Amino acid sequence: MSKSELPELSSHDDDKYQQLLRRLADIFHRQIPFHGLIGFEFDELSPDGCRISFNKKPELIGNFMQGILHGGVTATALDVVGGTMAATAMLGKNLNASDEEIARKLSKVGTIDLRVDYVRPGKGEAFYAKARLLRSGNKVAVVRMELHSDDDTLVALGTGTYMTG
Amino acid sequence: MSKSELPELSSHDDDKYQQLLRRLADIFHRQIPFHGLIGFEFDELSPDGCRISFNKKPELIGNFMQGILHGGVTATALDVVGGTMAATAMLGKNLNASDEEIARKLSKVGTIDLRVDYVRPGKGEAFYAKARLLRSGNKVAVVRMELHSDDDTLVALGTGTYMTG
Amino acid sequence: MSKSELPELSSHDDDKYQQLLRRLADIFHRQIPFHGLIGFEFDELSPDGCRISFNKKPELIGNFMQGILHGGVTATALDVVGGTMAATAMLGKNLNASDEEIARKLSKVGTIDLRVDYVRPGKGEAFYAKARLLRSGNKVAVVRMELHSDDDTLVALGTGTYMTG
Amino acid sequence: MSKSELPELSSHDDDKYQQLLRRLADIFHRQIPFHGLIGFEFDELSPDGCRISFNKKPELIGNFMQGILHGGVTATALDVVGGTMAATAMLGKNLNASDEEIARKLSKVGTIDLRVDYVRPGKGEAFYAKARLLRSGNKVAVVRMELHSDDDTLVALGTGTYMTG
Repeated sequence: MSKSELPELSSHDDDKYQQLLRRLADIFHRQIPFHGLIGFEFDELSPDGCRISFNKKPELIGNFMQGILHGGVTATALDVVGGTMAATAMLGKNLNASDEEIARKLSKVGTIDLRVDYVRPGKGEAFYAKARLLRSGNKVAVVRMELHSDDDTLVALGTGTYMTG
Repeated sequence: MSKSELPELSSHDDDKYQQLLRRLADIFHRQIPFHGLIGFEFDELSPDGCRISFNKKPELIGNFMQGILHGGVTATALDVVGGTMAATAMLGKNLNASDEEIARKLSKVGTIDLRVDYVRPGKGEAFYAKARLLRSGNKVAVVRMELHSDDDTLVALGTGTYMTG
Repeated sequence: MSKSELPELSSHDDDKYQQLLRRLADIFHRQIPFHGLIGFEFDELSPDGCRISFNKKPELIGNFMQGILHGGVTATALDVVGGTMAATAMLGKNLNASDEEIARKLSKVGTIDLRVDYVRPGKGEAFYAKARLLRSGNKVAVVRMELHSDDDTLVALGTGTYMTG
Repeated sequence: MSKSELPELSSHDDDKYQQLLRRLADIFHRQIPFHGLIGFEFDELSPDGCRISFNKKPELIGNFMQGILHGGVTATALDVVGGTMAATAMLGKNLNASDEEIARKLSKVGTIDLRVDYVRPGKGEAFYAKARLLRSGNKVAVVRMELHSDDDTLVALGTGTYMTG
């Protein structure tokens, strides 16, 4: 979805959107225990794309060989950044909703299906995952995601379909 | 793959296979840090199916509502039990390989792609994931997986394609 | 979705549902040109499962070797039986809707995403594809599908996510 | 896979490769009946990407509304251009193989799994599908595909995993 398909933001609306996105980042960062266990940081939340990052801690290693990120961490990072993107798009369509309505809608955001293509072993000391919207409707968002190591090597790609309303 | 498509096991071969499967379970259980972080137990490794289980610890929670398993844990469990199934099938075809060859082949087992369908919220205190082979060749195995809560409610389904040689 | 999750059907409602399903079968069979090009028959439409079948005509052959069904036909058959299942479930939830509303809802049924796992070459003179619901909501249905040759050999499996409202 | 990962082509090898690609295009175009039924043209076969195109004939229409391409045609086009890409990459690694070996390897190229994301209705009078390699090994290639209408509107995306040896 291009930014131009979002509702026109007056500067007042834009303030409201930024406030909602900060609230979303706070929920995702502080209130979801598994995000803390992995160590995700939420770097960017915008209608143009979302980005999270994390460091490779020893307990995130898998796949038989010392130093390679576990495929489950890869899948998790892609799902999380995709869900963040879906929620970000949903909020942009509900700038006039009440706090209660926003909370209700956020609680319904969830992954319907997720696909991950593992392209290269996850080597490196840190990773980031990016997402962009392929399709955004009132009910369902489709998001494409990428995981890169910190030297910009592509590690995995994903596509997720998310319930958004 | 039906059991009958596996090489015929003499009782001697069967001993060797059981020994290889114990070695595989040991590697997956003790030598992969992320498996320890989640808390996976490897309940069953056999050519007819694999099964792992884990308890819902507070740090595995996600998805905005207290008590629901994070979708990344679901994806991880499905990937792990699928990879275990693929490795189990690969070992059954290499009963006469040297220890060195087995180690080399195991190090090559990896996920090519993974799909997860989230069917119901992951409620419950414990979960198990099961896998069965759809297709097993010298190079690639395709595995179908299911995640259930401990009262046998289906939580998610997955399909994984694994490199096996 | 088990039948018991559908709205209780009085015998009157049941008549209405059967009438809607006949209308759906007629649309799928007669009004979609590509279904005619392949030669699909709609054998069964019910909330418990859907089934379509077709004969292997020479022009459906692909994959380099004489006599093997083209993978695109396989994907098409799985998508069609999955969409039929999604529409069948949607109709069961809208027994009291007006004809106009039914037409509007049917026109919105569409595939969001489709996955196909090719398990064995499509040999045989005829094929059938079956579908069953994994998840059915007001907006989205998730369906699992199988393609078999007429001697019941499993050829391919699929999962589709469909917009239903 | 970037072109630089392919074996260095001397001008002699390059002639051989072009000759193999012409042979591949000829097989795909003339010897696969279902490709003829749809009407695929093979526009470009190169290690940097493949492209096919087709016109919207009335019999390719589906999805309830006059004029929209059937989703099965979309899936077929994505699978075909992805398989073409996988075969093109395989040939580039086998420039010194005998004709018999090439024929044997081509007969083994097949789709392991395919995923399609339907992004927009397939409106338009003609369509093209493009593919590029994500991962290419001796045994398996992973390919990403896109279907566009002739005014460059993105209609669908796909990812396919192909057996290549």
